Amino acid sequence: MPTLYHAPRSRSTSILILVEEMGLADRIDVVNVTVSRQDGSSGPDPRNPHPEKKVPYLTDGNDHVRERGALVAYLTDRFPESGLGRPVGHAQRGAFLSWLFYYQGVMEPLLVLDWAKIDHPALHATFRDLDAVFARLAEALDGQPYLLGGGCSAVDLLLSSPFQWLPDAMPEHPAIQAWISRCADRPAVKAIAARDSAEQ
Amino acid sequence: MPTLYHAPRSRSTSILILVEEMGLADRIDVVNVTVSRQDGSSGPDPRNPHPEKKVPYLTDGNDHVRERGALVAYLTDRFPESGLGRPVGHAQRGAFLSWLFYYQGVMEPLLVLDWAKIDHPALHATFRDLDAVFARLAEALDGQPYLLGGGCSAVDLLLSSPFQWLPDAMPEHPAIQAWISRCADRPAVKAIAARDSAEQ
Repeated sequence: MPTLYHAPRSRSTSILILVEEMGLADRIDVVNVTVSRQDGSSGPDPRNPHPEKKVPYLTDGNDHVRERGALVAYLTDRFPESGLGRPVGHAQRGAFLSWLFYYQGVMEPLLVLDWAKIDHPALHATFRDLDAVFARLAEALDGQPYLLGGGCSAVDLLLSSPFQWLPDAMPEHPAIQAWISRCADRPAVKAIAARDSAEQ
Repeated sequence: MPTLYHAPRSRSTSILILVEEMGLADRIDVVNVTVSRQDGSSGPDPRNPHPEKKVPYLTDGNDHVRERGALVAYLTDRFPESGLGRPVGHAQRGAFLSWLFYYQGVMEPLLVLDWAKIDHPALHATFRDLDAVFARLAEALDGQPYLLGGGCSAVDLLLSSPFQWLPDAMPEHPAIQAWISRCADRPAVKAIAARDSAEQ
């Protein structure tokens, strides 16, 4: 059985939510580890096999998966029956992968840079800015409740996740705010948040 | 037939190299477009359907793919016979996806931040640093010529690509330098570089 290394109330929480939404809770072992916290309250855990002691990290003992987008793609491809992914050959496969890589390679860097109040022409040339991110989200949500249509998918869970931690980053755009609320209201999100809180 | 929007001597060059390596040159239409260059020599192209006028961008008219890691995953999954990917179910599927997302979400941001000489504790907490990137590459290349073993895969083509443009970023590590040279010496890399140069 694959093992997921998780730290409560961290980036790996979104992967635990995905596991819950996919109905995989009894097919994946979850091991809680500590990670370095910005307030210095905890540090890296020697039991964590991630080479940089980050989370999430998934391994079956041989193969391994790091980076949240990779875990989302790996799990939804491996367990397609959940309906939260878009399998190889699906008409939205390209859009699905694009959101995952856009999150990891553009949206998350821009959120961190914005939080740290860093700007630079080279960063804009590569990543553009959060206004462009919000424009992409707003376009995708125009006339549909979720990024890929009428149903919630794994990309909604991943892309809405930072706004649970960074409410100040939430844009003043009604359709995006409604989508973030829609994702936050899902039973799996509330169940994992409650469990995470109890564990810290 | 899918259309790939490409700008010569840009990030999309690595995708053109992948297309050549995979033997797909006659199965994908390539449309050259202009993009904004740092020296101001050209600007965004109205023919480019990418919402931020970047490259690469792949579309079949309905579905679309943006971000290089997404294009690599999409193309290698769709055309598994090339052997350059690791299909769903493969024993290295997790490692394959991890390298792609690690490139997009960690390595490329760190290379851009290093080039712009930007450092910040929040960036280090999220991305770590280039020393960690080079440590991961060196570990993977310990005892094998390519990141996933004895044969060149799509992750080698993507992860070695920035060093063709940023030779100053190349680490003083013999195994990594040899791997970069090994990738740069491939006929497809040289053929596309020659074609790209002739088009500018």
